Amino acid sequence: MLSLRTMGSFHVGGRGLVVTGQPKRRITYSKAFADVEYDPNGHYWIEQAYVQYFIPSRLRVPTPLLLVHGGGLTGSVWETTPDGRDGWLPYFLRAGIATYVIDMPERGRAGFCAHEGIWPEAPIVRSEEEAWRLYRFGAPEGFATRTGFPGLQFPLEAATAFARTAVPRWPGNGPMMLAGLEAAVQRIGPCILLGHSQGGGFAMAATIAFPDLVRGCVLVEPHGVPAPEEIARPEPRGCLLVMGDYIERAAEWPPLDAKARAALAGWAEAGGQAEIIELPKQGIFGNSHMPMMDRNSDQVAELILRWLDREHAAGRL
Amino acid sequence: MLSLRTMGSFHVGGRGLVVTGQPKRRITYSKAFADVEYDPNGHYWIEQAYVQYFIPSRLRVPTPLLLVHGGGLTGSVWETTPDGRDGWLPYFLRAGIATYVIDMPERGRAGFCAHEGIWPEAPIVRSEEEAWRLYRFGAPEGFATRTGFPGLQFPLEAATAFARTAVPRWPGNGPMMLAGLEAAVQRIGPCILLGHSQGGGFAMAATIAFPDLVRGCVLVEPHGVPAPEEIARPEPRGCLLVMGDYIERAAEWPPLDAKARAALAGWAEAGGQAEIIELPKQGIFGNSHMPMMDRNSDQVAELILRWLDREHAAGRL
Repeated sequence: MLSLRTMGSFHVGGRGLVVTGQPKRRITYSKAFADVEYDPNGHYWIEQAYVQYFIPSRLRVPTPLLLVHGGGLTGSVWETTPDGRDGWLPYFLRAGIATYVIDMPERGRAGFCAHEGIWPEAPIVRSEEEAWRLYRFGAPEGFATRTGFPGLQFPLEAATAFARTAVPRWPGNGPMMLAGLEAAVQRIGPCILLGHSQGGGFAMAATIAFPDLVRGCVLVEPHGVPAPEEIARPEPRGCLLVMGDYIERAAEWPPLDAKARAALAGWAEAGGQAEIIELPKQGIFGNSHMPMMDRNSDQVAELILRWLDREHAAGRL
Repeated sequence: MLSLRTMGSFHVGGRGLVVTGQPKRRITYSKAFADVEYDPNGHYWIEQAYVQYFIPSRLRVPTPLLLVHGGGLTGSVWETTPDGRDGWLPYFLRAGIATYVIDMPERGRAGFCAHEGIWPEAPIVRSEEEAWRLYRFGAPEGFATRTGFPGLQFPLEAATAFARTAVPRWPGNGPMMLAGLEAAVQRIGPCILLGHSQGGGFAMAATIAFPDLVRGCVLVEPHGVPAPEEIARPEPRGCLLVMGDYIERAAEWPPLDAKARAALAGWAEAGGQAEIIELPKQGIFGNSHMPMMDRNSDQVAELILRWLDREHAAGRL
């Protein structure tokens, strides 16, 4: 049973766009609405973010959590696991955490800009093969038979359900996405950011940009984190880094792991509270790049929940 | 206070796609992950739908409701209004209705196909000018000053918040979207469909396709409804049509209104229970094409809730 005080959503940020001088064309919406003139000229809004939120009736900590998905994915990653268990969103809600979920600009319900020439590059999509490698499900040669790393916690039997969650992305849109996240933080007010993968890099950048608003920062397998020299931190906020298993077995991951550790070191150097959870060092093995979907997703969420409790007890939230 | 037994989401339907023979290129994800080789070849999943659901602890009727958004929009239209009031999703949940919300294929968290040549046409977007006209906010000449029809219930002061909810669409994707809705219905099981605008046409088509699963059908300002001769209905299910105000003042709407009425007549002819609510005839004035966002959105939702109660009492759900 989950008792909510309220729930809702909003779109935030972005900019107005006026399209002029484009030719009209004839299109068909449906049988009942055929051969209609489509005029692409006019007023539009682009680059906004979408945020859905749920506020439990009784709060465990006073500060809400904003979950920031990774690249090529949307906020749906927090809701469920490919094999149909509860995701981290219901987990945190049941624990009494007010939780906001963002769809970053260009993803999911935030929408994307379909006008040509506004975003310079073409969209890309992550293939199942690339996901297999980058998400550390297994060695490349294991893809054809879906044979993962020994002891893998990711539910490979539900690989198709997971493949359905991927969405296109535009590689050059980082600054615009960060602006969308920052607009969401300004709208929400004081909050804690939990960012996964690309969302971890954005979460740390937004934490640095809004030290008065962002009261804590959880980086789950981040990439794109700020370099140590970019980290300035006037408030002694906490930052938690969570890393999974098999880092040494995927070529891309040792340098990303090193960059994440360097960022945490820079955080501590700047006066912040830094904590690193390497799951295998705590005797928790088999986690992929998607710990919110791994079989032990609740166990990893509980480690984050305990950190939130400690940060609350220390008066930092 | 809202008490939920459970909440979650799933992606459903669609098809596998294998891309071969495409050139690789160099892309930059972020400062920390620059000049990476992007290989578009591989396995993908496309044309799936996304469904989010919320099950209240105490149910008013035994059958869940599936909300189907209209064209150029996503499931977010049900969550809130542009001026920040509760949308129909929280309204129905508070009333004790188990509610599912779909993002149709190519929209929102369902994602879209970014591979060239798979979908034949280019995406289109609805300008604020076109929305103004088709959604019956006001006469075309009122757009520049945002002067709506006299007595309009749509909150025009929040027009920018509404503009942020629009997403691109592909005009020729109707059959694929209907397949996604049907996959959702098969996954959910017995349910009631409530479709808005383009979603109303799909809702009626899915109701005809799955007479054993779809126990009732609410069409809110539909377009793309089946022609009367396409309507076969072995079960005496109920179908409710809800139409707003200003139908005669927007050139596109009188023929769409006539087609919706013809569909309801066909429904009754085929042995179904048909009911039409013309809001102005009930003394409810000023509703646009977006009654779930109009100032009296709760009042319109209550009419639908009473219809659900009557259908339940009649044993048809």
